[in-house]
Amino acid sequence: MDNANLSMLCDFYELTMSNGYFKNGFYKKNVYFDLFFRKVPDNGGFAIAAGLEQVIEYIKNLHFDENDISYLKSKGIFDEQFLDYLRNFKFRGDIYAVPEGTPVFPNEPILTVKAPAIEAQLIETFLLLTINHQSLIATKANRIVRASQGKTVLEFGSRRAQGVSGAVDGARAAFIGGCLGTACTLTDELYGVPAGGTMAHSWIQMFDSEYDAFRTYCELYPDNPTLLVDTYNTLKSGIPNAIKVFKEVLLPQGKTDFSIRLDSGDISYLSKKARKMLDNAGLTNCKITASNSLDEYLIRDLMMQGAQIDTFGVGERLITSSSSPVFGGVYKLVAVENESGEIVPKIKVSENTTKITNPHFKKVYRYFDNESGKAIADELCLYDETVDTSKPRTIFDPNATWKTKTITDFTAKELQVPIFKNGECVYDSPSITEIADYCKEQVSLLWDEVKRFENPHTYYVDLSKKLYEIKNILLNIYGN
Amino acid sequence: MDNANLSMLCDFYELTMSNGYFKNGFYKKNVYFDLFFRKVPDNGGFAIAAGLEQVIEYIKNLHFDENDISYLKSKGIFDEQFLDYLRNFKFRGDIYAVPEGTPVFPNEPILTVKAPAIEAQLIETFLLLTINHQSLIATKANRIVRASQGKTVLEFGSRRAQGVSGAVDGARAAFIGGCLGTACTLTDELYGVPAGGTMAHSWIQMFDSEYDAFRTYCELYPDNPTLLVDTYNTLKSGIPNAIKVFKEVLLPQGKTDFSIRLDSGDISYLSKKARKMLDNAGLTNCKITASNSLDEYLIRDLMMQGAQIDTFGVGERLITSSSSPVFGGVYKLVAVENESGEIVPKIKVSENTTKITNPHFKKVYRYFDNESGKAIADELCLYDETVDTSKPRTIFDPNATWKTKTITDFTAKELQVPIFKNGECVYDSPSITEIADYCKEQVSLLWDEVKRFENPHTYYVDLSKKLYEIKNILLNIYGN
Repeated sequence: MDNANLSMLCDFYELTMSNGYFKNGFYKKNVYFDLFFRKVPDNGGFAIAAGLEQVIEYIKNLHFDENDISYLKSKGIFDEQFLDYLRNFKFRGDIYAVPEGTPVFPNEPILTVKAPAIEAQLIETFLLLTINHQSLIATKANRIVRASQGKTVLEFGSRRAQGVSGAVDGARAAFIGGCLGTACTLTDELYGVPAGGTMAHSWIQMFDSEYDAFRTYCELYPDNPTLLVDTYNTLKSGIPNAIKVFKEVLLPQGKTDFSIRLDSGDISYLSKKARKMLDNAGLTNCKITASNSLDEYLIRDLMMQGAQIDTFGVGERLITSSSSPVFGGVYKLVAVENESGEIVPKIKVSENTTKITNPHFKKVYRYFDNESGKAIADELCLYDETVDTSKPRTIFDPNATWKTKTITDFTAKELQVPIFKNGECVYDSPSITEIADYCKEQVSLLWDEVKRFENPHTYYVDLSKKLYEIKNILLNIYGN
Repeated sequence: MDNANLSMLCDFYELTMSNGYFKNGFYKKNVYFDLFFRKVPDNGGFAIAAGLEQVIEYIKNLHFDENDISYLKSKGIFDEQFLDYLRNFKFRGDIYAVPEGTPVFPNEPILTVKAPAIEAQLIETFLLLTINHQSLIATKANRIVRASQGKTVLEFGSRRAQGVSGAVDGARAAFIGGCLGTACTLTDELYGVPAGGTMAHSWIQMFDSEYDAFRTYCELYPDNPTLLVDTYNTLKSGIPNAIKVFKEVLLPQGKTDFSIRLDSGDISYLSKKARKMLDNAGLTNCKITASNSLDEYLIRDLMMQGAQIDTFGVGERLITSSSSPVFGGVYKLVAVENESGEIVPKIKVSENTTKITNPHFKKVYRYFDNESGKAIADELCLYDETVDTSKPRTIFDPNATWKTKTITDFTAKELQVPIFKNGECVYDSPSITEIADYCKEQVSLLWDEVKRFENPHTYYVDLSKKLYEIKNILLNIYGN
């Protein structure tokens, strides 16, 4: 993988189709693709968009080298001129996208590509996999962080991740969603997500006794050590040894930041027992970290049971989003430019009505109520429509047009921003901390009803009247 | 990620512990770690080991460069001498592992490391994530392939994979488990897993009509094209257009390898209808491919309903193993060498009894019945035990020692083979096709009862008498 060219990370059909577009002259024709998803993981009320930064890096580096060309040549199905074209391949189109950390909803484009057909087609697989993966993990992290009600959540899952980037980029996405740190060193080195961690069971086993292991550790790292207390017996050995070492090694140095970690057994029960033992020993400042197959549901239950936990270390169930491990983003053609430069809308009909696409080059508006500041609805409009916020606006449910709502005193925000223009990156990427802060702020602008885990309120994603009409015309033509 | 050093893909605690081992002189001490798992995904009867090849590459490239050192220095907690040590870091230990494609069972070491403490510790995270990821996908692929009863299964999931390596290495693992190809181009280029694929809906939408799109495609790729027939209406438009084009373009050229792909709607119903329409048109040779959120359960149902499908394209539910997306491999210290070179066994006790480890440096034997050729049981023995197959051998269940079984007329095969000796790779890696063939053969040596999806028979993984006794002594010491 080390020397792999990610431009080759595409479904093979992107290449066979592109070869066909080339031979048919379509490579000069601008087309429009929307990237959107149809269902929120875990039946949640919204998702968090993430992965754009890796898309930007990918687009900047897009190219085919001689190894790639000779591999393709060996297949015996690609036109020589097409391979020459690939040798000089560069993305020269436009990309618009919602910034990372934005709450997003089904059926609205979170990324839109306008580019000559081959360029727009070849990038499909990578764009999808990157946005799907990171949005999945950012969305899951946000759920877990919401369940923790202000307690610290750390990402601990590298070893159970689905591959290298599952771990490294997953930890990045978890930070966007609200985790305050990760165990993954490489994510810190590459992306600046703070990495931390202290000891595994092997550290304790390596010494002649648990006490020796704890003592050596605290002597070495007197600033904020966390001692893992369940190697032998949490209550009878782990916590007593930890208390002894904190008192012998840390308190005399005036150090008061330290904690213990529970990693097995009944976390609720053990945390309450631990809290009492620590408090009785005068160590009220000692914090308690819990790990062991946690997720938003277990954390919600632990909070309800009054568990005495200050920090949650969340592993496999976050880094794989195990209860809902697929983010179903799709990339669909929505328009094609004809010879005279006119934008012709396209639709994909389907036996499954939920798979019918919203045609045309579009804008996405989010409307905020000026009084509460909360997000009320999103509206998909044609690319050349503008919304006049000085007038009341009536929006309607595209699946039940008699359901209308008239909004007044509102602010309209365009969700997508320009990322590439004519192949040049025009986006000033925020820092990872800015993205996480932005996410936190934007989630706070959603109503609680949209944020609950069970049967969340369905946030409105409506179509403008013009767009709705165009969609219906196309459905009448192609939907037989 | 492009220039990332995977040696830094480790939990931060591997580095804090290693720094501690360094200061305590443990870096000279040989230790033994086992990599094993506790539960088969999807409650299956066995897993398929995979990922070893990527572990080998990683170990060969293990190093810390100046960027890594300055990153670590910036943390302010690592000893200067330790950082110097890392500058010259190289793995010099031994690694034993079961070959890729081997069926494996809970609680048996699928990989064992003997190395100085720091070297064995630092590689923990990467080894786990790689073996966990690829074993997860190989295991899932094998289930799906078994459900398909000899029909072709292709891996189609890149766009829904959890990150770049989720897609690329996942497709490799799927091939090991029995898929015959992938849509992922990069997996073909890097690993030689055959990539294929034909068209997306966008190809069809790009043309003025479905007929034009099909015709152009078949003219371009007359050898074995697959036409996607559900863009507008499968039965009324897609299949009739496909039939027309096959007859007009391919038959006159004498081409008889072609197929259609169903990607939405009721696949069972549509495949039967399609089969009839194709047969009535004289195209009995035309194959039918089905995709759309398939997995082993849906495929088993489709087969039972008599669906007329020749090839299954399986996407998100394979590449994420969505019904069971975590392979819970762990890496546990099992022994330490003392000053005189004696191997001292180590155990990890736990409140959760399933988390208690099997101590000591071990061998794993698989016993095959000479008459049927089938695998009967695995036995974990001490590293210096040998099994005399000329005598009957009594094995027993370590959790219910009164359950014994005496085997005669059997062959014993050591499952782990040497991969690294003193830091040098001594393993001659098989080709990816050899691995897949080996997997197929080894799975055929398991009884059907172990292979079924619901309540599979629990295959015996027993401890030798000597190992059992050592474990009990340690439990009596540490288990209070």
